[in-house]
Amino acid sequence: MTGNIIGERFVVASFGESHGRCVGVLIDGCPPGIELSEADVQVELDRRRPGQSLVTTTRTEEDRVEILSGVFQGRTTGAPILMLVWNKDVDSRPYEIIRNTPRPGHADYPAYIKYRGFNDYRGGGRFSGRITAGYVMAGAVAKKLLSKLGVEVLAYSLEIGGVRARQLSVDEIRKHRYANEVRCPDFEAAEKMKKVVLEARKQGDSVGGIVECIALNLPIGLGEPVFDSLDSDLAKALFSIPAVKGVEFGRGFEAARLRGSENNDPFILVDGKIRTASNNSGGILGGLSTGEQLVTRVAFKPASSIAKPQKTVDIVENKETEIVVPGRHDPTVVPRAVPVVEAVVAFVLADHVLRAGLIH
Amino acid sequence: MTGNIIGERFVVASFGESHGRCVGVLIDGCPPGIELSEADVQVELDRRRPGQSLVTTTRTEEDRVEILSGVFQGRTTGAPILMLVWNKDVDSRPYEIIRNTPRPGHADYPAYIKYRGFNDYRGGGRFSGRITAGYVMAGAVAKKLLSKLGVEVLAYSLEIGGVRARQLSVDEIRKHRYANEVRCPDFEAAEKMKKVVLEARKQGDSVGGIVECIALNLPIGLGEPVFDSLDSDLAKALFSIPAVKGVEFGRGFEAARLRGSENNDPFILVDGKIRTASNNSGGILGGLSTGEQLVTRVAFKPASSIAKPQKTVDIVENKETEIVVPGRHDPTVVPRAVPVVEAVVAFVLADHVLRAGLIH
Amino acid sequence: MTGNIIGERFVVASFGESHGRCVGVLIDGCPPGIELSEADVQVELDRRRPGQSLVTTTRTEEDRVEILSGVFQGRTTGAPILMLVWNKDVDSRPYEIIRNTPRPGHADYPAYIKYRGFNDYRGGGRFSGRITAGYVMAGAVAKKLLSKLGVEVLAYSLEIGGVRARQLSVDEIRKHRYANEVRCPDFEAAEKMKKVVLEARKQGDSVGGIVECIALNLPIGLGEPVFDSLDSDLAKALFSIPAVKGVEFGRGFEAARLRGSENNDPFILVDGKIRTASNNSGGILGGLSTGEQLVTRVAFKPASSIAKPQKTVDIVENKETEIVVPGRHDPTVVPRAVPVVEAVVAFVLADHVLRAGLIH
Amino acid sequence: MTGNIIGERFVVASFGESHGRCVGVLIDGCPPGIELSEADVQVELDRRRPGQSLVTTTRTEEDRVEILSGVFQGRTTGAPILMLVWNKDVDSRPYEIIRNTPRPGHADYPAYIKYRGFNDYRGGGRFSGRITAGYVMAGAVAKKLLSKLGVEVLAYSLEIGGVRARQLSVDEIRKHRYANEVRCPDFEAAEKMKKVVLEARKQGDSVGGIVECIALNLPIGLGEPVFDSLDSDLAKALFSIPAVKGVEFGRGFEAARLRGSENNDPFILVDGKIRTASNNSGGILGGLSTGEQLVTRVAFKPASSIAKPQKTVDIVENKETEIVVPGRHDPTVVPRAVPVVEAVVAFVLADHVLRAGLIH
Repeated sequence: MTGNIIGERFVVASFGESHGRCVGVLIDGCPPGIELSEADVQVELDRRRPGQSLVTTTRTEEDRVEILSGVFQGRTTGAPILMLVWNKDVDSRPYEIIRNTPRPGHADYPAYIKYRGFNDYRGGGRFSGRITAGYVMAGAVAKKLLSKLGVEVLAYSLEIGGVRARQLSVDEIRKHRYANEVRCPDFEAAEKMKKVVLEARKQGDSVGGIVECIALNLPIGLGEPVFDSLDSDLAKALFSIPAVKGVEFGRGFEAARLRGSENNDPFILVDGKIRTASNNSGGILGGLSTGEQLVTRVAFKPASSIAKPQKTVDIVENKETEIVVPGRHDPTVVPRAVPVVEAVVAFVLADHVLRAGLIH
Repeated sequence: MTGNIIGERFVVASFGESHGRCVGVLIDGCPPGIELSEADVQVELDRRRPGQSLVTTTRTEEDRVEILSGVFQGRTTGAPILMLVWNKDVDSRPYEIIRNTPRPGHADYPAYIKYRGFNDYRGGGRFSGRITAGYVMAGAVAKKLLSKLGVEVLAYSLEIGGVRARQLSVDEIRKHRYANEVRCPDFEAAEKMKKVVLEARKQGDSVGGIVECIALNLPIGLGEPVFDSLDSDLAKALFSIPAVKGVEFGRGFEAARLRGSENNDPFILVDGKIRTASNNSGGILGGLSTGEQLVTRVAFKPASSIAKPQKTVDIVENKETEIVVPGRHDPTVVPRAVPVVEAVVAFVLADHVLRAGLIH
Repeated sequence: MTGNIIGERFVVASFGESHGRCVGVLIDGCPPGIELSEADVQVELDRRRPGQSLVTTTRTEEDRVEILSGVFQGRTTGAPILMLVWNKDVDSRPYEIIRNTPRPGHADYPAYIKYRGFNDYRGGGRFSGRITAGYVMAGAVAKKLLSKLGVEVLAYSLEIGGVRARQLSVDEIRKHRYANEVRCPDFEAAEKMKKVVLEARKQGDSVGGIVECIALNLPIGLGEPVFDSLDSDLAKALFSIPAVKGVEFGRGFEAARLRGSENNDPFILVDGKIRTASNNSGGILGGLSTGEQLVTRVAFKPASSIAKPQKTVDIVENKETEIVVPGRHDPTVVPRAVPVVEAVVAFVLADHVLRAGLIH
Repeated sequence: MTGNIIGERFVVASFGESHGRCVGVLIDGCPPGIELSEADVQVELDRRRPGQSLVTTTRTEEDRVEILSGVFQGRTTGAPILMLVWNKDVDSRPYEIIRNTPRPGHADYPAYIKYRGFNDYRGGGRFSGRITAGYVMAGAVAKKLLSKLGVEVLAYSLEIGGVRARQLSVDEIRKHRYANEVRCPDFEAAEKMKKVVLEARKQGDSVGGIVECIALNLPIGLGEPVFDSLDSDLAKALFSIPAVKGVEFGRGFEAARLRGSENNDPFILVDGKIRTASNNSGGILGGLSTGEQLVTRVAFKPASSIAKPQKTVDIVENKETEIVVPGRHDPTVVPRAVPVVEAVVAFVLADHVLRAGLIH
């Protein structure tokens, strides 16, 4: 039943349940001397907080982070950092129904089998997107660490409900990624995305999308091949975000249709420095960072909780039935996933920066 | 510099270099009593052996596996299993050139930086596809283990050079996946794929493709969320295969464009058993196996080693130059990647079967 | 800076500082369905609580445990279990002095160097015995788990300040180990121990001692040689208790002076079962449990905090000086270490029981 | 069945059986650029080679190491290092008897239960002292690494068969520890030890002893508390050596009888540097190296294989019987354990030096 701990040098342990007392994270391995306040974490948490707009769930959680260990006089001490938010706006009553009638698209059924019925099913328990609040806390600390090397991690909604953003500059992404409810710096596309989301909501349905994440100023050679390659570790962590169904780097699946002569990035000199003329690799070769922009895209399925009635099975009476999924839901998880993807990429990069010995 | 060990209960450690003395694998955690012979491993190794056809490299390696520990009287003992093949057909002379002029699309340059010039660059060293011979050995043992639960792992070339196979039945995949050089059970598509590959080869170029892998008869509840989810661990391992740029499960990236009502798989009863009416999830919900067919697709970029001259930089003289990549190469890695994908999926599944306590 | 996580299947992560907001533990890997209440944990915590008698520190902490995750409807869920106690009776003022003048026998100086001055030095921070409250919480859960196999873990003060208990029966140990302040079931020796401790206290000094721990009803074959042997993992965990300077199993150091013919335990049949006639091995052969009583002894140095003035160095002014160690201290840590040793042995055994697949 | 891998940054994986094809080690994490030849390893291996004198077994193995990966042009590359020796002088016939009649003091019986009869029992298989050849190989590489920081690791026989060496200087230990068959730099004691060993051999018996190991020039702050403390990790690894029954640091068990005022090491200035006036701590405080000499003592039980007939049980017929242990044996393992203890301490220190980021 282990599996809630990730990382080698920047170790992130997740805990908490959607309707339990709290959700949070324990970080082991953060070097001493990093300035860290609750405000530093709060700013990131606020970006994934529910109840902020029409395109997300109406559950309202203050999600005020508390740092319970590992920080002294405003700086990390080198000791484990425990952070959590208390669950407050919890209404577990409607969830009784899912105990016996698993929600399509959710983990209810395999979780019931795996944990032999003992899992906390309320609000999805450990399988709830709420768990990612802990990821964001860890990411906030990781970003502080990465900033010492000038590394920046920026994500945004590349596509929602089939609406895709145009090609964007780093500056646009940096400045505008949190400027609207759908977290898309292409404002024209953002308007369309919003429309698609609201339409789906009106129909009791949901839409999926793609988050793109870039990381800037990475040192060359991050990653520990053959198994702890940078892409391997990023993919593992990204698939730990609920609703993710695909991960790709650089040209990704598209590269499968290119010729080698098109896809290879030629090495060139730029201001005397070795660079590549293109970046089809997405900044990773052989599992190592190349020093170019890291580019990854993460596919999110449409939110599984929809208002429409769905077919399911009553697992106690063993007969087919229908369920109207209870609770308050996001018609799309993509906008709130943006800070989560940033966080996850950040804590994996922090782990590899520490593994490479670049910060102590 | 660690990173060559993967798995928690079925632990796979990779070693060896393309032009060193050997490549192989050390397995820790295989339960005792599993029948295992060198022939069991050889049959899998033979499927990825180079030099078998026009569509692969002309390097000819016998790749005869030796089991050096962990097996006694034809059965595993519970002790670490060391397996290797000796490198024989090694011609390292042409590789001197890549020391200073990194090959586009290869790890040469970031590896040079990371290992400060001490890495064995001959034939790509640790970054060579040859390393996957060890993966296949591990997969062979894992398959023996999985067979005790009736679990089967089947991969095939879904797409090569833009040619895509039609929808195939499990039976077709099982019977015909190794029936032709491109490892595609759709023989019509296979012919086209072969044509595309040979054309690329003639032009000194290469093509990419997609391998699809299915796993049958999985028990419900494999995977250890939130971080060691089944998809997380599969993705991590799959990205450890050279040339992989994308991994998806079920509908994958396509799911990003579906509505929740389309993508959710309704639960139904089939012969009194709880099943899903569709399998858009690819057999994974919340990071747990659902008992339905596991479906994953892996995107391979076109082989980086091409005969065409390419731009690069002489890193000693710090000036731009051209390279004609030396050595013998695959115009596509996809056909030989098929048994590798099977192996990788198999050893990840074996790990999770052991973690779930289903075999001792 | 990692290192605060131990175990493979029953994973224990320690957090908190002596004078921070809390101390506690996160457990990952506890199987679902184990009955667990705060009262179960509290009974163990109360045994190590400070302020209970003259032979321990006068710091009074209520140490009321809170379970913040992983338990639902009175049972474990298979999710991570977060438990903590809040620090209340904290008086950090006297600790300013140790910032610059490290206390002899304490970790102050090497910690200052390692953490570059950023560690929370108040009350010793992470190096305080208070951290073991978390160990005890983990041990309480482990004991619940072990009880399913009938495994019992019993420790007691074998020796304090040179006073050694007589040979004791299992029954005596089980019943009386917490019957007096020094946790020695030999009441006569206990009286002498108490005298020695109080005398040392009066002189502003401290005494050491030895805790013996036995585990009963262990299944045969626990331990994962060669490196995760049962004795290896027990020793590692026991040395994680502050003030431990030696660990031995069975006859231990004494065995170094025996002949093989004396030390080997002959196999015999007892009621048709294979047993050993003696138990010089302490229930461990080749790193595996033999099914006989597990016996380990743990040497504790005298408490480092003494009232007598001691020589030290002012590390800022780089000159020799004297320190009178501030704070409230135990004249011996041995009695309070008894429940800690039990806890540590219990969580290591729980880990190996899970690794062996004996509980799911 | 995992458990054959140790270390976090300098990862050591053990493989091989006493009477299998080979024994050896796989190292993952060794930094690139370390000069390493087979001769470097051979010199250490020769120190534990059997058949060198009357006080050890008559099994004669050449034990010529082969480095099969990870070294290129005389230097480590950063890739996994595979090293092994082939087993040659193997006579497995006499071992058939131990299959059903477990040898007292050996792991035969619990191993039979754990591995369900599938373990390779010949010569003890994985439980043979022969496995430590791999430890010594790993130690040889670790020593090369440590030498970059000036760290030295020196062990010797402090006590054999009750004969204890006098207090020795570092210089004596460094120069003379391998000067005689019993590996004791006190030549007078060495003569007596030898006599005791030969007498035991004549009587078909064996003797135990104590190895002391010191490490010099350690940087301050090695160790990762609370669980991966330096003493914790050393103890874990040392208990992985067959026949070890006790481990202590500094004054060890003796410290249990001291007063705090006697045992605390006062800080003083020596040539302007902070040192301690005594070294009762053995160079470890709070699990961290203090910069003083690291001192550990390791208790070895008398060799379990003795010529005298011993009581045991026929586990197939379930009746008591006698066994005369077959094979060729050491009347004491202590002299050959000396290079093994050095190796184990060296690879644990190397791991912590890398964890501390002191070498890349």
